[in-house]
Amino acid sequence: MYFGACYYPEHWPEERWETDARLMKEAHFNVVRMAEFAWSRLESSDGEFDFSWLDRIMSIMEHYGIKTILGTPTAGPPKWLMDKHPGIYQQDMYERMRGFGARRHYCFNNLDFRMYTERIVTQMASHYGTNTNVIGWQIDNEFGMIDTARCYCSSCRQSFIGWLQRKYGSIEAVNEAWGTVFSSQTYRTWDELHLPAYAVHQHHNPGLALDYRRFSSDSVNEYQRLQVNILRHYTTGQSITHNAMGKYNQVDFYDMSKELDLISLDVYPNMKSEPKERPAYAAEQHDMTRGFKGGRNYWVLEHQSGAPGAVEMAPTPIPGELRRWTFQSVARGADAIVYFRWRTLPYAIEELWHGILQHHGEPGRKFEEVKQVGVELKKLAPLLTGTSPCAKVALIRCYNNEWAFELQPHMKGYEYIKHFEMYYAYFYDRGIPVDIVSPEADFTGYELVVAPNLMMAKEESVQALYRFVEDGGYFITDIRTGAKEWNNQITQKRLPGQFRDLLGIGIEDYGIIEGEQRIGIHNLNNGKISSATMWYEVIDLLAVESAAEPMAVYTSNYFRETPAVTRRAYGKGCGVYIGTILDKEGLNSIMDQIVSEAGITPILDGLPDGVEAMVRVGTDDSGRKLLFIINHTEDVVTVNLDTTYTDAMSDRSVSGAIVLASQDVRILCVQR
Amino acid sequence: MYFGACYYPEHWPEERWETDARLMKEAHFNVVRMAEFAWSRLESSDGEFDFSWLDRIMSIMEHYGIKTILGTPTAGPPKWLMDKHPGIYQQDMYERMRGFGARRHYCFNNLDFRMYTERIVTQMASHYGTNTNVIGWQIDNEFGMIDTARCYCSSCRQSFIGWLQRKYGSIEAVNEAWGTVFSSQTYRTWDELHLPAYAVHQHHNPGLALDYRRFSSDSVNEYQRLQVNILRHYTTGQSITHNAMGKYNQVDFYDMSKELDLISLDVYPNMKSEPKERPAYAAEQHDMTRGFKGGRNYWVLEHQSGAPGAVEMAPTPIPGELRRWTFQSVARGADAIVYFRWRTLPYAIEELWHGILQHHGEPGRKFEEVKQVGVELKKLAPLLTGTSPCAKVALIRCYNNEWAFELQPHMKGYEYIKHFEMYYAYFYDRGIPVDIVSPEADFTGYELVVAPNLMMAKEESVQALYRFVEDGGYFITDIRTGAKEWNNQITQKRLPGQFRDLLGIGIEDYGIIEGEQRIGIHNLNNGKISSATMWYEVIDLLAVESAAEPMAVYTSNYFRETPAVTRRAYGKGCGVYIGTILDKEGLNSIMDQIVSEAGITPILDGLPDGVEAMVRVGTDDSGRKLLFIINHTEDVVTVNLDTTYTDAMSDRSVSGAIVLASQDVRILCVQR
Amino acid sequence: MYFGACYYPEHWPEERWETDARLMKEAHFNVVRMAEFAWSRLESSDGEFDFSWLDRIMSIMEHYGIKTILGTPTAGPPKWLMDKHPGIYQQDMYERMRGFGARRHYCFNNLDFRMYTERIVTQMASHYGTNTNVIGWQIDNEFGMIDTARCYCSSCRQSFIGWLQRKYGSIEAVNEAWGTVFSSQTYRTWDELHLPAYAVHQHHNPGLALDYRRFSSDSVNEYQRLQVNILRHYTTGQSITHNAMGKYNQVDFYDMSKELDLISLDVYPNMKSEPKERPAYAAEQHDMTRGFKGGRNYWVLEHQSGAPGAVEMAPTPIPGELRRWTFQSVARGADAIVYFRWRTLPYAIEELWHGILQHHGEPGRKFEEVKQVGVELKKLAPLLTGTSPCAKVALIRCYNNEWAFELQPHMKGYEYIKHFEMYYAYFYDRGIPVDIVSPEADFTGYELVVAPNLMMAKEESVQALYRFVEDGGYFITDIRTGAKEWNNQITQKRLPGQFRDLLGIGIEDYGIIEGEQRIGIHNLNNGKISSATMWYEVIDLLAVESAAEPMAVYTSNYFRETPAVTRRAYGKGCGVYIGTILDKEGLNSIMDQIVSEAGITPILDGLPDGVEAMVRVGTDDSGRKLLFIINHTEDVVTVNLDTTYTDAMSDRSVSGAIVLASQDVRILCVQR
Repeated sequence: MYFGACYYPEHWPEERWETDARLMKEAHFNVVRMAEFAWSRLESSDGEFDFSWLDRIMSIMEHYGIKTILGTPTAGPPKWLMDKHPGIYQQDMYERMRGFGARRHYCFNNLDFRMYTERIVTQMASHYGTNTNVIGWQIDNEFGMIDTARCYCSSCRQSFIGWLQRKYGSIEAVNEAWGTVFSSQTYRTWDELHLPAYAVHQHHNPGLALDYRRFSSDSVNEYQRLQVNILRHYTTGQSITHNAMGKYNQVDFYDMSKELDLISLDVYPNMKSEPKERPAYAAEQHDMTRGFKGGRNYWVLEHQSGAPGAVEMAPTPIPGELRRWTFQSVARGADAIVYFRWRTLPYAIEELWHGILQHHGEPGRKFEEVKQVGVELKKLAPLLTGTSPCAKVALIRCYNNEWAFELQPHMKGYEYIKHFEMYYAYFYDRGIPVDIVSPEADFTGYELVVAPNLMMAKEESVQALYRFVEDGGYFITDIRTGAKEWNNQITQKRLPGQFRDLLGIGIEDYGIIEGEQRIGIHNLNNGKISSATMWYEVIDLLAVESAAEPMAVYTSNYFRETPAVTRRAYGKGCGVYIGTILDKEGLNSIMDQIVSEAGITPILDGLPDGVEAMVRVGTDDSGRKLLFIINHTEDVVTVNLDTTYTDAMSDRSVSGAIVLASQDVRILCVQR
Repeated sequence: MYFGACYYPEHWPEERWETDARLMKEAHFNVVRMAEFAWSRLESSDGEFDFSWLDRIMSIMEHYGIKTILGTPTAGPPKWLMDKHPGIYQQDMYERMRGFGARRHYCFNNLDFRMYTERIVTQMASHYGTNTNVIGWQIDNEFGMIDTARCYCSSCRQSFIGWLQRKYGSIEAVNEAWGTVFSSQTYRTWDELHLPAYAVHQHHNPGLALDYRRFSSDSVNEYQRLQVNILRHYTTGQSITHNAMGKYNQVDFYDMSKELDLISLDVYPNMKSEPKERPAYAAEQHDMTRGFKGGRNYWVLEHQSGAPGAVEMAPTPIPGELRRWTFQSVARGADAIVYFRWRTLPYAIEELWHGILQHHGEPGRKFEEVKQVGVELKKLAPLLTGTSPCAKVALIRCYNNEWAFELQPHMKGYEYIKHFEMYYAYFYDRGIPVDIVSPEADFTGYELVVAPNLMMAKEESVQALYRFVEDGGYFITDIRTGAKEWNNQITQKRLPGQFRDLLGIGIEDYGIIEGEQRIGIHNLNNGKISSATMWYEVIDLLAVESAAEPMAVYTSNYFRETPAVTRRAYGKGCGVYIGTILDKEGLNSIMDQIVSEAGITPILDGLPDGVEAMVRVGTDDSGRKLLFIINHTEDVVTVNLDTTYTDAMSDRSVSGAIVLASQDVRILCVQR
Repeated sequence: MYFGACYYPEHWPEERWETDARLMKEAHFNVVRMAEFAWSRLESSDGEFDFSWLDRIMSIMEHYGIKTILGTPTAGPPKWLMDKHPGIYQQDMYERMRGFGARRHYCFNNLDFRMYTERIVTQMASHYGTNTNVIGWQIDNEFGMIDTARCYCSSCRQSFIGWLQRKYGSIEAVNEAWGTVFSSQTYRTWDELHLPAYAVHQHHNPGLALDYRRFSSDSVNEYQRLQVNILRHYTTGQSITHNAMGKYNQVDFYDMSKELDLISLDVYPNMKSEPKERPAYAAEQHDMTRGFKGGRNYWVLEHQSGAPGAVEMAPTPIPGELRRWTFQSVARGADAIVYFRWRTLPYAIEELWHGILQHHGEPGRKFEEVKQVGVELKKLAPLLTGTSPCAKVALIRCYNNEWAFELQPHMKGYEYIKHFEMYYAYFYDRGIPVDIVSPEADFTGYELVVAPNLMMAKEESVQALYRFVEDGGYFITDIRTGAKEWNNQITQKRLPGQFRDLLGIGIEDYGIIEGEQRIGIHNLNNGKISSATMWYEVIDLLAVESAAEPMAVYTSNYFRETPAVTRRAYGKGCGVYIGTILDKEGLNSIMDQIVSEAGITPILDGLPDGVEAMVRVGTDDSGRKLLFIINHTEDVVTVNLDTTYTDAMSDRSVSGAIVLASQDVRILCVQR
């Protein structure tokens, strides 16, 4: 277990460094992240490298038993470099240069920038690649932040053409895939291709627009690969990672994580504006991050430790809150907690982004709380070793579909990710662990796979889902699933396309539910009436063997009494289709029914609202299970345990009803 | 009567064509619209023309008895052309090129584009000009769509200067007309003139800004004339038209229609967001379109046949709805119904814009409904021949005033067209047919002319209105009428300017009614109190012979008890002035009084809400009258007939109370 | 006392001039403002000057006893000049040229423009500098209007670098001051510096961003100085002024006023959208304007005389309203009333900006009202001589802090000026006169200084405030005061930084109050509970001699029962700190307590809502006091006088209860 903070020695007088290291040791830190924005200190002019200051702080840290995770500093190219090669700046869709003053102001496809990247990373890697104080490398910083994965410069246009050539082979294939015959948009030569930039309106051909999003994501990955290859060459025994922001969606983080040893997360729960939604908001990011790398544990490289905010602040964590979020992170699979940041900076755009220490640098209430966590984590570390979260439910989030719905929301105000989160919220509220996975994930071991809006899917994914159901799995999907080909064309098959057989239904007719309108939904199982919004599909039950049967029907409109939700027994499993957007009550009753049939249960029954339970399970034979109970509320709560545990802090045996104060956390252990 | 669909053979495999033609015949189609976006198929490279595929599909269509309306493909210039002459792209007010990816990406004043236009149109016209399968030509597509009639490129600047030279003769006259002495904006030479582009703020001189709007509209018309002239030269017996969108307002469609044989409309009722407002929304477009060409019947070249929408869909038509809209179109003067589109396209930006067939291409419920309409129209066609809508009320809509109010709304949130629609709604709700006409229309034959916001009017129009009233007509006008000169200067005459004598009033004082404030209006005829918003004018009754008299007075503010609405007997007629914006109740009572005096009556008394009645009257001596009754509601309704009719479908005699199901339509006939 | 209007002879035929002058004399005018937008008339081509028309109108005016205030015409550079030197145009942050068509389209740092400015001003000054008809000069017009004080052109970049060189001396000092080590933003050379233009996001380094705002304000002042120097050289006995808009905040008007003989104001009360807020809105601008020049009387060079508005109109003044606003202006220190404008212009963008005469030019109700004011002012003038408003309260408004909060509002929706106005509203509502002053003002003579959000302050200001309190003054300040250094870095001192000792408190913890949340505030004096929003600070009472004591405490959250408002006796005075944003009731009770202790009383007790009282006091030994009572309401009101006065109009003695009609004004006089 790594525990520490982001530290910027270059921001502080050298005489302060030892004080900081001493205080860190006091808080039981064993790691700091450094240097990820220090390019201008590491290479203050073209080719003039200076690692001496970094060597000095690392040896001070070493003295206090603190290791280092080094960042490559490429997220902040210095002014001298930008002045020398202004072509590095990103361009927006209006061909406006996004100039100096923030960060991430570079184009991933610019060759000059790749050369300078190669040099600085090589220099760092060769200098630190065998330094035993360095335990890992973070590549760049938060790819895709502030809308920076998509650029419209001429380098990007050229690279995009190359990407299309590799993908399609011929311009005819491009025309075919995109359907450019529409509106005289046919391209004769590769040279005629263009980016989806400013035009008469911004609704570019959906094939072009989706390919551009894929290309942009691939450009990030290609740029990262450049750095990974250098680091692999020079380093020994050091982990390579990147601090992803799971909900950013300009980069396909499943792809991006493949090259890395492990993936990392930056998490700021208080940036969610609605206080009640913060626990699920943070939990979702943890579950997403775990999913980027096939369910493996991860690092948190920036963990909220004070009020975040650039020009406006998010709420200041109240006493106990840092600890609560920290243990949520650990519970969901974090094997490193690195707070952002050690001390609040008195200048520059993050001067209101608060760290553990306030601006004046003397320990206060946040430091004391962090120190307490340090003690607890030290005690907990041996138990955590070899444990991971474990879920019976896979929830598919697919960047390609997210992008396709961004381009064509179908309904006013519709967002793929909000729709996805409706399902996530169901499981979070029920206390059922889920893995958030790629559509190309291995579904072995799951009892239930939920795939919202799986509008397009690769043939392999479709086959894997058929096999999953044949083998006894439950599969839930919903509106527009199967409606598109992978090239973003609408299928010419009858709907729901590739999933017609698995679900046993046909869809000939569909449309939006306007504005404030609601359509009644009658659940045939419990007889209750709920309502649906935004979208309806008129479902025919196909006359096939073991035909689909309705779980709920519409109560009004010209399709009243026709199925709104169906299920079909398929192989040993079952395929469920939800042909509209159910309200919370309606969705809950359908989900409860399926979840119950699939034999999936919550971690703890009867948890009070706002109390989260999560387990980490030993992957070895020990049968060790760590149960985390977290009280996110302002109240004292009582939780009923299902068995007898050992309290991991006090080593006392506990069972029955236990009481948690507001903000409190309990970690309990049981061995088989 | 023409009946058919927009068909894009270039989108589908050639082996499918005959299937489509056969299905069309089954639906009683006799026309398709083709080729209006097929430039890159007709001229795949510079000067390489290929009409063979179009010849082939036309001969298949001929085989099934289906004629063709050809579109000139100029709305979609191909990429090879744009790459060769990038100066063709429109520029926005920030001098940003509006690049490739949509349509209408060309500047009307670019000479290269005019040359290529001339060539492709000449090629098509010479190839098809005597082909008897071609019954008509649509020029380009929806001029003015997506804000594309106004461009800020250097060609436009030069053309604008030329336009001003022709209009004003001298730079001194420009300075005088615009009042450029204000704020040192005087121009010394023609070269100093500029477009109303990006500046410190976008409130350019109102004279300049209005002239630029007029110039932009004229540029569209000049560009159209180029095509019309070619078509006139090469074609025989083929009608020349354009598919206008009546509510688009960047082009003066009265001007534009002058050159055409007939005008056409594209109509999508479901694109109006408020379901209850859809019938009037569509009806208004029909009435506008009829007015573009002096009240003559017109074609509908794109008629909604499924859910429209690019990235978000509008509602899917429910069963019966296509038929209902179709007969509304016919009732209001459409002599061709061409559905958009035959089959829903599986790719490109209109893949969610639904046609008669779904993506998979097999007939479904919409096809069956269209087929029923086909049968009915076939039966109806002989009766329709020689009939047209006929109105006693002319409602003036003036682009010049609309533009002037766009530039200076006077009041927060004020829109000319919404104000206009307040009056339109009165007549629609009362079931009284109106013609929507130009201020330069011939008012002969009308009983009542309503001219909302006639802020500026040409001297000829003013004189025509005086004559109309002298001869016994009723004239209703309202706020700001007469307040401006045609050059967009405020008049230095006492208000209401040119209309002072006709109305017998003076206006010295006026102002806005702020925000949520309301001013009471006391109707002196019925004693009721209603309220006024947004604007008041303080009206003096002039001491003239047969002086104006108040119809309603204000009940509060410093002008309480002064007239809010006046009427003056003038000649054999009457001039009514409404000096504020009345609420619905207040307006209704004034309008009812005048309408009743003028002897104007609804088509049918006592129609239920949401039921529309409209007549087409024979223009010959037969005295034939076709009565259309359309139930736009979700309910079964009862309608009381005023006399005995023959049901045009069943040939049975009907009278008294008749019952219509939801969505149903009844067409009744009476002969004198 | 000057009384007149803005007059534009160039807008009207010369034969009209004498009529206008005669009507002005009838209204008792003694001054007109002319020529401030007449550049193209004064210099119709490069170097061709013509003052003859201006000479002619001035001699007509002279004949009617009317003097002239001349404007330099530099706010409207003519097209010939812009065409010759397009580099003069301002550029926005996207490097887009803000072209011709409005006004103020020039860059303050462009050298060509400075040369042309120098020439036209020299020409005018040498021509009119000794003309006894000219009593004053207005430089340019409304600096900072329409976001025109900040430009991003290359001249500005060069000037900014020069400004930084003069301010910081070395690039290292710049890096230090801004903290550019953050995110690799270190600059190596002056050439690397840039403006805070379009970048990946617009949150530029706060040091850079604030310096750019200061530089922009200084550029305006430097440009003004160019004109002042010329005028000083050529003129004799003519006052130099500028018509500032007090709430515009791109120029530091304290700095700007230093060079001027007196400052002027343009005031349009009806441009405030909420009618009830108009009196305070206008009053605040008067008080601000007085404060620009250390409390001295000022001129109003544009005074609302009709409905203002460019494309949308603000409300038309009702009968009596012009008079009411005029006397409010006089009451608050205006020594000149110049209405904007004489006659409403029938053309150009201000054709809806109404003046005294309507477009037709004949006298109407506004003229009659102005005439009445003319009579009254003539009578009042001798009494006004030597009098000024006089306040015991100074309310600090600081541009530097306003800019800093614009850059970093800290809390969503927070605005410095709205927060400031919360305090202003307290005093306005209580009828207590305030001076709105610079933080560098002389506080002598005040009983109370209120400094909202004094986040940064120069050392001299801090010391002056300490001295003020030591000497017995009351000082109220609030959240974030002392939190920053003058370079916009957050202090590394413990909070509240420089004010820690004066206030006797420490602040370790703070944060936002989210969205709709409220925190209870218990006023320990009156026991009442009010609520706080947006921001809280957790206050420690320092263990010092005469320690701070709580005036109010929080009632909830983790800091419940800790102080929300404190006071500390310091020297002979008292320092009050408000650590949150109180609601109106909560603020009123704290303010009332302090105001009462400080012995500050309203002008008149028990004034009805919407009735304003203000005094002008003789600065000589006469002890003359003029009491203005203004009824801003729609109702008749009764006001109780505190003593016996002489009515300045009727010369009658009045005391006890007096009655004012709606819109009425009473001016009463008392001599010691």
